[in-house]
Amino acid sequence: MPDTAAPGAAPIALDAMGGDHAPGEIVAGAVQAVREHGVPVVLVGAPRPLYEALARHDATAEIPIVRAEEVLSMDEGALASLRRPRSSIAVACHLVRRGDAAAVVSAGSTAGVVATGKLRLKGQPGVLRPAIAVALPTRPEPSVLLDAGANAEVKPEMLVQFAHLGAAYAETAFQIRRPRVGLLTIGSEPGKGNKLVKRAHELLSASPGLDFAGNIEGHDLLTRSVDVVVTDGFTGNVALKTIEGSVRYAFAELREAIGESRTARLGGLLQKRRIRELHRRLDPEQYGGAVLLGLNGTVVIAHGDSRARGVSAACVLAAKLAGQGVVARIGERLAAAHRPHRLWRPSGGPHSSPARPEERPKDERPQP
Amino acid sequence: MPDTAAPGAAPIALDAMGGDHAPGEIVAGAVQAVREHGVPVVLVGAPRPLYEALARHDATAEIPIVRAEEVLSMDEGALASLRRPRSSIAVACHLVRRGDAAAVVSAGSTAGVVATGKLRLKGQPGVLRPAIAVALPTRPEPSVLLDAGANAEVKPEMLVQFAHLGAAYAETAFQIRRPRVGLLTIGSEPGKGNKLVKRAHELLSASPGLDFAGNIEGHDLLTRSVDVVVTDGFTGNVALKTIEGSVRYAFAELREAIGESRTARLGGLLQKRRIRELHRRLDPEQYGGAVLLGLNGTVVIAHGDSRARGVSAACVLAAKLAGQGVVARIGERLAAAHRPHRLWRPSGGPHSSPARPEERPKDERPQP
Repeated sequence: MPDTAAPGAAPIALDAMGGDHAPGEIVAGAVQAVREHGVPVVLVGAPRPLYEALARHDATAEIPIVRAEEVLSMDEGALASLRRPRSSIAVACHLVRRGDAAAVVSAGSTAGVVATGKLRLKGQPGVLRPAIAVALPTRPEPSVLLDAGANAEVKPEMLVQFAHLGAAYAETAFQIRRPRVGLLTIGSEPGKGNKLVKRAHELLSASPGLDFAGNIEGHDLLTRSVDVVVTDGFTGNVALKTIEGSVRYAFAELREAIGESRTARLGGLLQKRRIRELHRRLDPEQYGGAVLLGLNGTVVIAHGDSRARGVSAACVLAAKLAGQGVVARIGERLAAAHRPHRLWRPSGGPHSSPARPEERPKDERPQP
Repeated sequence: MPDTAAPGAAPIALDAMGGDHAPGEIVAGAVQAVREHGVPVVLVGAPRPLYEALARHDATAEIPIVRAEEVLSMDEGALASLRRPRSSIAVACHLVRRGDAAAVVSAGSTAGVVATGKLRLKGQPGVLRPAIAVALPTRPEPSVLLDAGANAEVKPEMLVQFAHLGAAYAETAFQIRRPRVGLLTIGSEPGKGNKLVKRAHELLSASPGLDFAGNIEGHDLLTRSVDVVVTDGFTGNVALKTIEGSVRYAFAELREAIGESRTARLGGLLQKRRIRELHRRLDPEQYGGAVLLGLNGTVVIAHGDSRARGVSAACVLAAKLAGQGVVARIGERLAAAHRPHRLWRPSGGPHSSPARPEERPKDERPQP
């Protein structure tokens, strides 16, 4: 994968102590990232167990270790990040801050990683709130959904910024030129939804440098009707977990249907492999996990139960986002959007229809 | 189905003009309801086309027609219900108001049906807001989710009432004795979520006559972890449509997987029937559509694209809810919950944990 990491690029700082299967599976994932994807990785955590784990892969010479005395346990929340300045995730963030690492990857508790990231890396200039972006398993490219849970309470202006964060993600991770942005609500007409989305619809319609496609609904999330889905962290988290639960449910029902008759069971046996493959493709781990956007550095949050494959996918994603300069891209987008947006005042009421493309300010940014 | 309609019970007032396939499929559904389920139905709409449609089923003697000059078209919203006092849905509501019908069934536009229902039937005493309840395809019994879209903006007190509306639905439609109620949010701990759900969690924990099971998340919606899922109309509508879209997506992916190889295709052929059956079971029409709860009368809103099967299922559900006295049951529940709830004051902060069963006031209602 030439585009994931330039030769001699700064390594990914991998929190080796975070996650249900740390450090064993984390180290195995690091080895996969280095050997199979050419992504340089530095492990952050307790030296002895990490060295022993690397030795089992015969990789002590390939992957350096950076010492971190403390560990943020999975059940520790936001406050622990203050209590543990030397935790593996805190040290990993510090490496990025110092320029010794390109990005952070952790399978630790989301609350702890988000809090530590905010504390150690700080928000990018002009960013109101960092947001968690996830890639939905749509095709050909994934759709980006954000916020997936970092902000349960938001303001309309924040949703506009989320649109730019998500667009920068789509541009850098999936090479989408002019990402189309949709607003998640409960009706396709501009007037549909709660106060938050009605106001956000106005602001998104008027935000320069944004290809706003209007409202989308729950049943559009997996049809790739847009490249970026914008929503608050409460709705986004419910929607994401509902997708995971529904897909799991559909497969369980199917497995049962297959088991119900002998002929069908035969059919099922013939298909087992196909279905396993499909199952794998729908597995969020495939997409490397969630990304915390809006900080002075890229932080990828892998699933807490990530195994080696999930960890290496997260490292590949982190290297790609860092290599393609997602942080800088966010800065450009917000700078371009900031002043006009500041000056803009709503003309119509909450029911005013979205600006049609020709009415919407063109995207002035230099094409990559 | 003896429990659906007592002999000589008042008929279901079926809006024969609402829906994408009205009146043909609506009339066909009425015939199914009468002949296959023993549910008496009266058709409301334009007499001539209805009579002709009934004649095609040789059912002119079985099903009476009540004249309604006007029709609420599918694209007409809430306001139309004011402009059209003689619409088929308005007349159907009037029949229930007069006691000439037990309940209303319509496949018309949700906005129009909700507005007309509120206008003609009025809210039950003590009900802050009527809510739309849907049955999720869980097993052995469906779980009830509400609000599914009637109220995009709610207050914590309304969520408590939704819990009682949904519990009354589960008791009457599915004979569940002490329905367990869950609050949809983004974490299992009491402190998780936005301001609305944190406050609602406190009120639900303290509400008498409620078996509150605490928070549930998106991935719990189809695991039947609770009998009733309470949420605001915005989140509920997004979650419901996300379930529909995700299940459709999983089956489409599956169909493709089946088509991919010859052996797998063979397997697919062997299974087609099973999968069709499964698909049917996951079809919302099976459950008769959404129910508007909290009015002086039961209103079942069938899907706009309902065919005969969906319409008859809606009539069966309406007859069951009316026959089991869901409106009276809601009245009892709210009366029992009202005073203590009024007097109750929050002790702990938003992070106070839910009352444990023994601390929670017992359900005093006479067991049916």
